[in-house]
Amino acid sequence: MRIALAQFNASVGDIKGNVNKMQNLSIKAFELGGDIVVFPEMSVCGYPPEDLLLKEQFLKDSRLAVEHLAKSCPDITIIAGFAEAGEKGYYNSLAVLQEGQIKKIYHKNILPNYGVFDERRYFQPGTEALCMNIGGLTFGFTICEDVWQQELIDSLLANSPPRDIIINISASPFHTGKIQQRQQILSRCAKHFNCAVAYCNLVGGQDELVFDGRSMFADSSGKIICQAKAFEEDMLMADFSAVNSNNEMTVKSLKNYKAGTFSTPIDSTVEVYNALILGTKDYVRKNNFSKVVIGLSGGIDSSLTAAIAVDAMGAENIVGITMPSKFNSSETIKDAQILADNLDIEFYSVPIETVLDKFNSLFGKFDKWTTEATAYENLQARIRGSILMSLSNSYGYLVLNTSNKSETAVGYATLYGDTAGGFAILKDVPKTMVYQLSEYVNRVHHHEVIPVTVINRPPSAELRENQKDTDSLPQYDRLDQILKGYVEEDKSASQLIEEGLPKTVVNQVVNMVDRGEYKRRQSPPGIKITPKAFGKDRRMPITNLYTSEGFNGK
Amino acid sequence: MRIALAQFNASVGDIKGNVNKMQNLSIKAFELGGDIVVFPEMSVCGYPPEDLLLKEQFLKDSRLAVEHLAKSCPDITIIAGFAEAGEKGYYNSLAVLQEGQIKKIYHKNILPNYGVFDERRYFQPGTEALCMNIGGLTFGFTICEDVWQQELIDSLLANSPPRDIIINISASPFHTGKIQQRQQILSRCAKHFNCAVAYCNLVGGQDELVFDGRSMFADSSGKIICQAKAFEEDMLMADFSAVNSNNEMTVKSLKNYKAGTFSTPIDSTVEVYNALILGTKDYVRKNNFSKVVIGLSGGIDSSLTAAIAVDAMGAENIVGITMPSKFNSSETIKDAQILADNLDIEFYSVPIETVLDKFNSLFGKFDKWTTEATAYENLQARIRGSILMSLSNSYGYLVLNTSNKSETAVGYATLYGDTAGGFAILKDVPKTMVYQLSEYVNRVHHHEVIPVTVINRPPSAELRENQKDTDSLPQYDRLDQILKGYVEEDKSASQLIEEGLPKTVVNQVVNMVDRGEYKRRQSPPGIKITPKAFGKDRRMPITNLYTSEGFNGK
Repeated sequence: MRIALAQFNASVGDIKGNVNKMQNLSIKAFELGGDIVVFPEMSVCGYPPEDLLLKEQFLKDSRLAVEHLAKSCPDITIIAGFAEAGEKGYYNSLAVLQEGQIKKIYHKNILPNYGVFDERRYFQPGTEALCMNIGGLTFGFTICEDVWQQELIDSLLANSPPRDIIINISASPFHTGKIQQRQQILSRCAKHFNCAVAYCNLVGGQDELVFDGRSMFADSSGKIICQAKAFEEDMLMADFSAVNSNNEMTVKSLKNYKAGTFSTPIDSTVEVYNALILGTKDYVRKNNFSKVVIGLSGGIDSSLTAAIAVDAMGAENIVGITMPSKFNSSETIKDAQILADNLDIEFYSVPIETVLDKFNSLFGKFDKWTTEATAYENLQARIRGSILMSLSNSYGYLVLNTSNKSETAVGYATLYGDTAGGFAILKDVPKTMVYQLSEYVNRVHHHEVIPVTVINRPPSAELRENQKDTDSLPQYDRLDQILKGYVEEDKSASQLIEEGLPKTVVNQVVNMVDRGEYKRRQSPPGIKITPKAFGKDRRMPITNLYTSEGFNGK
Repeated sequence: MRIALAQFNASVGDIKGNVNKMQNLSIKAFELGGDIVVFPEMSVCGYPPEDLLLKEQFLKDSRLAVEHLAKSCPDITIIAGFAEAGEKGYYNSLAVLQEGQIKKIYHKNILPNYGVFDERRYFQPGTEALCMNIGGLTFGFTICEDVWQQELIDSLLANSPPRDIIINISASPFHTGKIQQRQQILSRCAKHFNCAVAYCNLVGGQDELVFDGRSMFADSSGKIICQAKAFEEDMLMADFSAVNSNNEMTVKSLKNYKAGTFSTPIDSTVEVYNALILGTKDYVRKNNFSKVVIGLSGGIDSSLTAAIAVDAMGAENIVGITMPSKFNSSETIKDAQILADNLDIEFYSVPIETVLDKFNSLFGKFDKWTTEATAYENLQARIRGSILMSLSNSYGYLVLNTSNKSETAVGYATLYGDTAGGFAILKDVPKTMVYQLSEYVNRVHHHEVIPVTVINRPPSAELRENQKDTDSLPQYDRLDQILKGYVEEDKSASQLIEEGLPKTVVNQVVNMVDRGEYKRRQSPPGIKITPKAFGKDRRMPITNLYTSEGFNGK
């Protein structure tokens, strides 16, 4: 029994394109001797299609596409995921296609409705297991979340016959630490049921999410036998056979994966870097952009953004713009140029002083307007935003935003200024990780891509004389520590203080995070790489009178 | 048995403030002879608290607040809504408070997870009914959605004793047509169970939502006896008694509501206008702003926005700014001034020409930059956005955005230009309704607030010579017809064409809507007034390759 896991980059809504790819991959799997080819969850329509699922026509088209796929590839058993309109509602479904027909359909039982997931908004949960004999072996079928909760999968499979192989089709998005969780869960599942597991995960970027692939096979001892590539399309094949009277399943990998190599410690910096590249590449490509434009300040965030963009799309597709004012030091202006040279990208300087002066004259009649106030700083950022957007509108370039997670969290940004842009690569990357990634860029390219002066200089928005980020914010290592607790782990201010973090700083940061929600609501989408990102993952009200003081009844 | 429905304006997160109000209202109800005072769903913590519900401390505080409320008002039975951390998860709960204690708790059974609702993200469904004898009558308790589905409420109450009164606490947001639905459902519920119904709904604005109050009592014949005020805090009281051996409940209203007046045809223009006023007032107030600034173009959208703002917050809190360029006609410039005079608001003119020229010079080096292209139009809008935001930053004013639903739908707007602002009053108001509301403003104020010339002039963005909206868009009545079908009713392009709408226009509009998602994702929140608004209500992917062509297998 030879099984192929066809982890491919499906696009949301591109039913025709996805099915076309699935046809080609099915033929390839058949030619390589495959008996079964497995595609990811919702492979036919892409994941997550969100409210496209409320459009009847979309569901009809998905069904037609599955039928078309079955007819066009009758020689191999195909396991495909799709959104299905049933009589009692919609289902997240798995179809078994054989001999030109939809043979069986399984409905996902456990519908995740937390974090970035909204599956109960659309789907009814299935209530039945699907077990099926294919080529003499018994298969159990599951979809993603189904296997993540031991008790639920237990009760789901309780009344079905003993099985040899559990197939799981997934669309499991990346964040740091996720692959370790997945390996544990699949291994536990294999051991618990004493059967092999064939796991096919989606790959590709979709708005805020990156699916990292890394499909895998486990044998019935729970050992992960082989794993497909991370952040790339791949086809992973293995042969399955029962070895003894206990029906223990061995799995023989058919490609050159050494068992164990993938379970060596994973460098999360490398993982994140690759996630950012794929997420950027796919956002740009799937939204039909060819080139991007980036504002280069000579600071570390824009430098890293540009470096990632070059690795994602090639230097020829990146345009850098530096927009100096009198507040920019000669060092940062020079560093922007050096970075552009190092990256070999198109580069222009558009000084903002003349426009800034004219704006300033306009505001003469307003008594509270002064060049000493924050409003004057914000204005500089907005002029830069307008310049980038003007070039975007003229040339059809996508503006890449350069904000990181730390400043996004505390609202240390100007709305429509440095928050402007179509896509924010670093939106979920804390500042401390920005440094790690920048050093990684230089390491992996074996030369100084991001100038060391950029990495070593104390961060500054350069919107007034001698400004430093630390004038307004705590040190970034401290800030990121608080943000991890408050944003990612939903701890309260008092919990963080009890854990030993300084009270004044904690309260300052918590307050800034709460007050910054209105800015985040209007900020561009960016790539989720932590367990909790801003965007769909964290849904806070803007109007929010809750404070960290708690309720004391007085 | 005297019951008081205390429909009050709870604020999300303001546990202390809400409970304080509830104490005062409980005392008032007691003094008026009330035996029971009923508060809306989640009255203690406000609705919807969204991901505040993931914070343990928030749940603890809610519980403490309920206990505090019980202790502080032991003389009257209080029915309060709160978010409860239980052993097996969180619940949307109703507490019965008596004699200083939490006597009973009911868990909401039916958790809405569609449209703007995400309740399954947070809550476990309850599984049990709660029936209770209070003062010789039997009460059944329900929360909002519980009574919206006849079969579910049937099975929920099947095994409980016959009851005299069903209490329903709600946080049911407004959209046009909703009150009629609610009246029908409550009436049906009363008739079906042959019991009276006491329905208490939340009132107030919360980000995109407006809760319209209109709490009501129905007798056991299904007749709505009286209804509280719309869009205002109110306390509605009634006396209940059984009249015959069938235990039929009569309800005697204690305030001067004539049965039937509220069921006369409702003018949806008036409803919407009041919803917009409350939504605006509460967004401004609850986010601690005192004044707002509005860009006045002399067009109908900004004129209506300003008129609503004045009715919501008073003329003394509104600042109008006109920002003319050479493309603005003397008529529109004059109309902006007339409107400001009519409204008696502060008004300034900040011409953008000098800044526009300097920007234009900056772009000389870019070969595709030209004053003939759309980018030049976008730039004008962005300069205006920057001016408004600069004043916002200088004075602490909130910028009110003036975009309507029709242009938001088709992306006929400049990102960070006319999409800029903290709150978009008209975001969910189709252009055709903008006209109706403008005429209503003049009617209700008994004089010309919005100049008739503004209402009669063909709409134009005035970003180039002799520009008209109809250069780029279909006529607004046609456009709104298509948008209603495509956006609000999720019909496909082919359905709309089958219904007789012109193919070319339908395809053009559908395509514009699909491509405009990235702009909407960064646009400010606005008030939902239709059955489906942009924002939380309609969650479309930005990266979306689905087209109206459908799947044909080729």
